[in-house]
Amino acid sequence: MQRPFIHPSIADVRLENVLYALADPARLAIVRTLANGGCPMNCSTAAPAQLPKSTQSHHYQVLREAGLITSERRGTEVVNVLRRSDIDQRFPGLLTAVLSSSS
Amino acid sequence: MQRPFIHPSIADVRLENVLYALADPARLAIVRTLANGGCPMNCSTAAPAQLPKSTQSHHYQVLREAGLITSERRGTEVVNVLRRSDIDQRFPGLLTAVLSSSS
Repeated sequence: MQRPFIHPSIADVRLENVLYALADPARLAIVRTLANGGCPMNCSTAAPAQLPKSTQSHHYQVLREAGLITSERRGTEVVNVLRRSDIDQRFPGLLTAVLSSSS
Repeated sequence: MQRPFIHPSIADVRLENVLYALADPARLAIVRTLANGGCPMNCSTAAPAQLPKSTQSHHYQVLREAGLITSERRGTEVVNVLRRSDIDQRFPGLLTAVLSSSS
């Protein structure tokens, strides 16, 4: 049996963890894809495809534990969703500023 | 003779490095202090005072190399200044969002 995903409540989400999670090009790419609705069917494929599956899973885990995404198993896939309204409420303007910044 | 401080030009400042630099409570505290003008005489004392000097120096180095601050030697002190307008120009809204977020 697989372990359930654990998501922090929004009150427990810490700015440092969010910034750390976003401070990686692959994770930032995932967040951009999720924010842009780049995976309408599901978001198990938002990570850069050239990355090994284990690396992709690690990046999703960091994002999940930071409070940036939720993950849900559906059959053999994992559907990831950006917690946009949660993060916007907790850290107003942060995601918008990050996502509109071209690096 | 001491090595000169090296500051990236604003065009070379990368979002990932800025986010990584800010993703540490001590460095965030430094940036907050600098942003709030908490060191009017000089900003060699913006870091949390309980940190060892070597740790403080490391944090300033990370901030400097990320492009968030400039450092300048004046006698035996180092004066650090937040590159607020540079960062605001390159990543509009980012510092404001980070600094206004209570963690």
